[in-house]
Amino acid sequence: MEKVIQIKGHIIRDDIIKRIDASCVQYNGTYRVLELQIGRQVDDISSAKIALDINDEGFTLILNELTNLGIEIPSMNNQARLEPSEKDKTVPDDFYSTTNHPTEVFLDGKWVRVQNQRMDGVLVVKNGEVFCTKLRDVKKGDLIVCGSEGVRILTNNDEQNDHDFAFMVNDVSSERRVEIAVKKLAEEMKAIKAKKGKIIVVAGPVVIHTGGMDAFQDMIRKGFISGLLSGNALAVHDIERDLFGTSLGVDLDTGKVVKGGHKNHMRAINAVNKSGSIRQAVEDGTVKSGIMYELVKHNIPFVLAGSIRDDGPLPDTMMDLIEAQEAYAQMVKDADMVIMLSTMLHSIGTGNMLPSWVKTVVVDINPAVVAKLVDRGSAQAKGLVTDVGLFLTLLNQQL
Amino acid sequence: MEKVIQIKGHIIRDDIIKRIDASCVQYNGTYRVLELQIGRQVDDISSAKIALDINDEGFTLILNELTNLGIEIPSMNNQARLEPSEKDKTVPDDFYSTTNHPTEVFLDGKWVRVQNQRMDGVLVVKNGEVFCTKLRDVKKGDLIVCGSEGVRILTNNDEQNDHDFAFMVNDVSSERRVEIAVKKLAEEMKAIKAKKGKIIVVAGPVVIHTGGMDAFQDMIRKGFISGLLSGNALAVHDIERDLFGTSLGVDLDTGKVVKGGHKNHMRAINAVNKSGSIRQAVEDGTVKSGIMYELVKHNIPFVLAGSIRDDGPLPDTMMDLIEAQEAYAQMVKDADMVIMLSTMLHSIGTGNMLPSWVKTVVVDINPAVVAKLVDRGSAQAKGLVTDVGLFLTLLNQQL
Amino acid sequence: MEKVIQIKGHIIRDDIIKRIDASCVQYNGTYRVLELQIGRQVDDISSAKIALDINDEGFTLILNELTNLGIEIPSMNNQARLEPSEKDKTVPDDFYSTTNHPTEVFLDGKWVRVQNQRMDGVLVVKNGEVFCTKLRDVKKGDLIVCGSEGVRILTNNDEQNDHDFAFMVNDVSSERRVEIAVKKLAEEMKAIKAKKGKIIVVAGPVVIHTGGMDAFQDMIRKGFISGLLSGNALAVHDIERDLFGTSLGVDLDTGKVVKGGHKNHMRAINAVNKSGSIRQAVEDGTVKSGIMYELVKHNIPFVLAGSIRDDGPLPDTMMDLIEAQEAYAQMVKDADMVIMLSTMLHSIGTGNMLPSWVKTVVVDINPAVVAKLVDRGSAQAKGLVTDVGLFLTLLNQQL
Amino acid sequence: MEKVIQIKGHIIRDDIIKRIDASCVQYNGTYRVLELQIGRQVDDISSAKIALDINDEGFTLILNELTNLGIEIPSMNNQARLEPSEKDKTVPDDFYSTTNHPTEVFLDGKWVRVQNQRMDGVLVVKNGEVFCTKLRDVKKGDLIVCGSEGVRILTNNDEQNDHDFAFMVNDVSSERRVEIAVKKLAEEMKAIKAKKGKIIVVAGPVVIHTGGMDAFQDMIRKGFISGLLSGNALAVHDIERDLFGTSLGVDLDTGKVVKGGHKNHMRAINAVNKSGSIRQAVEDGTVKSGIMYELVKHNIPFVLAGSIRDDGPLPDTMMDLIEAQEAYAQMVKDADMVIMLSTMLHSIGTGNMLPSWVKTVVVDINPAVVAKLVDRGSAQAKGLVTDVGLFLTLLNQQL
Repeated sequence: MEKVIQIKGHIIRDDIIKRIDASCVQYNGTYRVLELQIGRQVDDISSAKIALDINDEGFTLILNELTNLGIEIPSMNNQARLEPSEKDKTVPDDFYSTTNHPTEVFLDGKWVRVQNQRMDGVLVVKNGEVFCTKLRDVKKGDLIVCGSEGVRILTNNDEQNDHDFAFMVNDVSSERRVEIAVKKLAEEMKAIKAKKGKIIVVAGPVVIHTGGMDAFQDMIRKGFISGLLSGNALAVHDIERDLFGTSLGVDLDTGKVVKGGHKNHMRAINAVNKSGSIRQAVEDGTVKSGIMYELVKHNIPFVLAGSIRDDGPLPDTMMDLIEAQEAYAQMVKDADMVIMLSTMLHSIGTGNMLPSWVKTVVVDINPAVVAKLVDRGSAQAKGLVTDVGLFLTLLNQQL
Repeated sequence: MEKVIQIKGHIIRDDIIKRIDASCVQYNGTYRVLELQIGRQVDDISSAKIALDINDEGFTLILNELTNLGIEIPSMNNQARLEPSEKDKTVPDDFYSTTNHPTEVFLDGKWVRVQNQRMDGVLVVKNGEVFCTKLRDVKKGDLIVCGSEGVRILTNNDEQNDHDFAFMVNDVSSERRVEIAVKKLAEEMKAIKAKKGKIIVVAGPVVIHTGGMDAFQDMIRKGFISGLLSGNALAVHDIERDLFGTSLGVDLDTGKVVKGGHKNHMRAINAVNKSGSIRQAVEDGTVKSGIMYELVKHNIPFVLAGSIRDDGPLPDTMMDLIEAQEAYAQMVKDADMVIMLSTMLHSIGTGNMLPSWVKTVVVDINPAVVAKLVDRGSAQAKGLVTDVGLFLTLLNQQL
Repeated sequence: MEKVIQIKGHIIRDDIIKRIDASCVQYNGTYRVLELQIGRQVDDISSAKIALDINDEGFTLILNELTNLGIEIPSMNNQARLEPSEKDKTVPDDFYSTTNHPTEVFLDGKWVRVQNQRMDGVLVVKNGEVFCTKLRDVKKGDLIVCGSEGVRILTNNDEQNDHDFAFMVNDVSSERRVEIAVKKLAEEMKAIKAKKGKIIVVAGPVVIHTGGMDAFQDMIRKGFISGLLSGNALAVHDIERDLFGTSLGVDLDTGKVVKGGHKNHMRAINAVNKSGSIRQAVEDGTVKSGIMYELVKHNIPFVLAGSIRDDGPLPDTMMDLIEAQEAYAQMVKDADMVIMLSTMLHSIGTGNMLPSWVKTVVVDINPAVVAKLVDRGSAQAKGLVTDVGLFLTLLNQQL
Repeated sequence: MEKVIQIKGHIIRDDIIKRIDASCVQYNGTYRVLELQIGRQVDDISSAKIALDINDEGFTLILNELTNLGIEIPSMNNQARLEPSEKDKTVPDDFYSTTNHPTEVFLDGKWVRVQNQRMDGVLVVKNGEVFCTKLRDVKKGDLIVCGSEGVRILTNNDEQNDHDFAFMVNDVSSERRVEIAVKKLAEEMKAIKAKKGKIIVVAGPVVIHTGGMDAFQDMIRKGFISGLLSGNALAVHDIERDLFGTSLGVDLDTGKVVKGGHKNHMRAINAVNKSGSIRQAVEDGTVKSGIMYELVKHNIPFVLAGSIRDDGPLPDTMMDLIEAQEAYAQMVKDADMVIMLSTMLHSIGTGNMLPSWVKTVVVDINPAVVAKLVDRGSAQAKGLVTDVGLFLTLLNQQL
């Protein structure tokens, strides 16, 4: 039986009719466009009336998809359906799974904005407020938003207008003018700093191997960095460099392998273990320079998340990943920008936690890594395929 | 002042004189070859008398390097020097850092074989036995082997003669005959199975995306797999495939993205959470097929190590990485072969734990990943650049 | 001053309004959608009336773009404008530049189909016929189609419905089920063979290095291959393998470098030079097996195009690239399918010559190569990231 | 029957005994080291007496290999064996195939230096002089050096001592300090310029896409570039940029695709065709800036070699590759340095022509390309994995 829905939003810009068509194909349904009023321009709001002859599963899916794209469906503006969790860490089967876009839930006659927005979460309603919650944090009895009725995504207009910053994303090929991109990024960073915003860097040890650490340290001293997210390796190599002049046994001034240098990273961990922590190693004079040194000296927080491949690890490295994920999430809360430098693992981890309105830049010499990060649903991420060392040097020159 | 050392071993094969030369350049020392008796063939044992004029640091380093290469230095056959640890998780500054090669320590007049051999460990002596120990497991008061006197590496002759299996390592380029390599690998696996040996697989979710899971499940059923090391993603995608026919929302039969499928991996985790664990989900009929299903049904152990990027995770995923590393290490103990399939993170983690005599094969479509794994000091690792799905299909046909 | 155009075609499916919007942004113009009648489904024909307020350059560009997308603009159905070339190899500045889609030109009251369709050509009108012509073949006085009035692109409906064959293109990632794609490709090839169609292979020497030559030779013997396009290297390595068992000095059975083998490719060229040509070398018994041998024995034509890096070259390698391009173009004329195996250079060269209705498959282990080929305007190309040797083995099993 | 040979040279440094061992394994022979006198240091000359029990083919191969490594074998200092070619473009089967190292031939009692040294050539003796000759240039009756008796390679000591410049080669990984490498390269270039030496650049169009053209033009104006080797694409994109501000239709200032811009490269070719050549297009004012403009204005020669994928091509592009190879070879004659920028095809073509004493630098963002070029027997090539645009900017700053 045909159902008729009224929709309103960026019907042309966001290919709404093509999407409905694809869903109908998948579910052996059909549709007819009864009315279509389109705006003067692509970015204008259009409205349509569409008749759908499709089974219930397909119908729900179409409504859900349109909702997630920011399309208003007045017939959906009913009270959201809430069902209790029957067991810790579980939700009803038809739970609403969140995107990273700004979301509202219709409760008791009004739209309530979701807090702690991130992707792949569930929505828990507590005292009239709605919290985006990780599955593992759901408690038995929590009220979970189910289906997609009474849920809507706000269209982020700022994002759409941000043409200049956006230009990078179209093409992750290395055949582009990195200099232009760096210039725009520097302007953005200066604007964020001017309004006392928050810029978080996610970095891998390649920052050190490629000689980007001088520029990075300078950026810390200049006050552009509000926090660092990384793993054990960056800190170990940074401290190894300070103590022995090598990184994984390679002399950083000459690029040559130092005999016996393979042992240096374990010696560095041993030295920090003797001090008790990185902060203490800086304060007792064991560590005298480097990225970790500058962070400690300027009281910039950092989180080092452990991984299965870690040696040591340093006492600061969090090997309990539940704790590490919480600490990461805390760090990126309210961030204005996140810059991801040559570390797929920590970048994906961080990307999962970010709402879509945080400016995100991914830099790596490997186009596949950049593409993978940009593709993972972090539509806001801009990719830059280039040498991270030269990138940081150039960026710092502009700051 | 010149010191003269007598050395014995594969002086020609292992480029011993070139290595001494390089160390002398680094430490501004000089050397003279006073005598050199070489064998009839390169693989034969040679002996030499060499005069070294070099400072103490350089001298120690040369002795240490030669020792690690399996060269005997009779003048070094003194009691190993033991120093106590002064604080948990720390060792004296000149601790001996282990390789992954078979090692012996000279104690009380005889050579004692090191137990739990792995790279980047320290040697702890307890009741006349020597244990290769991770830095974090060292306790205050433990006796640590320091310097390299009284330490020697056994030359693994088996490794050298293993010409056929070794052929793959020379070139990680994709331009080679994968079929030949698969044939040899299959023979090796059958030989290991025949003697009731242990074959451990380290695998990433690409095994599922590339369609390799049917072959892999068959290999489990045939009894070739003694254990699986992986992370959260492989198990989630495997169970998602069983429950919904998709992997990360992509239909595995048609290769097309399924509308709304992005939510399926969270639905799969929710389903397992309801059962309580993967084993329970298999036993209560929630999960009816797949890699995890076959492992449970055939009582093959698996360890899933958590990472910072994990969603969920599944209740079986170990988010405490100290525990996860212990469980991994336990799994590879006494393994005869480790096959690493398209997961750099878990492969490096496992590689760190392996002694050099474990046959190790690394398969990835990306030559850079294979090269990185083979380079990381796991000299025994053979690389194979190919499509993992086709590789498993072909391998299973030969088993 | 506003101009109003009437358009008809796949307005929704091909994002026509978004494209007009983008052009207006670029040329500081504006537009209003006066009417929009859309079909029942996305694939149906829609029609619209649009008012454009934009300068002449922008207006021409929009008409040209719409035309190239197969949109009918009745107001454009005027006699095409023809201007004479004033000098060999040159055309008037506003020449119409061709796509690889089927094109018609309006001449003397009727639509005339363009012959020799390819991309980046110009249209020459001669005796009422229209020829897609390379710039270098234009002669002074030739009548050239200028502007885009009187030109239209036919929408290739077959292409759109070809859902099964098309599935590969969406994602060039290596993380997909190659087996499914191979199965579909084999079916397609059998269908083409059944109707005595033409399948051309473009191949690089990797076919030999990866061990794909046995399968490829078998495909030639079975009659699936109508012609081979390649360069000097494939033929040299193939003949080197026949004469000496090596390819670039590497033993193909063991994968080991043969001492002195680096010289073998020059010895192979010398041997063919003595015979006079590849055909003669086969006929006089010098060459006894291999890809080139099978081609000669089965009278399958081949073209070897020279390149700046060629050694030798073989007497059959065409070092005059004008001739080589003509020979390539002749070979792909009326081809039903082109399979490109691991050679970016020859694949791009061939892709430039193909009309959009030729089924095209690109296979390479490097995702970047596949992406580059698929992106180069050959919208019909399907990419497959996998090991070419295993791919050919698997494909041949299905044929 | 055992033959005893006396050898002299870098026996330890160049692993001579290991190489003899490997050849004996291949030919089922055996050897005994009867005497070995090694120098004080690895770089010193050693001498040895070795007994070989091996068949004739293996014996010849060992002598040939040792000769090519610069080992002196006094028993080999006989008159070189010369055999006439029996047919144009062919040589006797046991011809001596050249390396790119400096070579001498023993004729009439003295060593004669080979002229036009390059790899994969043959040696033609004419009037007491020896010419390294491409196979295709051999004429019937030419006297060809056969076997390896009477041939020796000179050890290039300069190369060995060139430690600083050499450091880059060890590791083509992107994880290194590009800045250090650029600094050393700039010093080298200034030294070459100071002594009026010859620096040739081989470049692909990526130089333009990545924004490196400003720096490159500046380097031309400063007089650092003695010649450019490239293909059709670099010149077309450079002139397209001058005429229309785009490169392959992408606006180089904003990085955005320009509507209708895909046609611009054909328009650029048309414009140059109207002028008649690039030089004429510069002189008649059609082309007003860019790399080609600067080359013409400063009378720096360039060679554009055609390829099978070329559109157009420009009138300057040589489509006869025999001519193009001659022109390339002429350009690199007596070059002191060759810098290869992001073009595998032209770089391999040039590398084939270079003697081993020409300093060669390969820059590409893709590690696989750098590795392939460095591996191709051009042992002198130093690889640098980085963004070419930033590389040129940085390099120009140092010049």
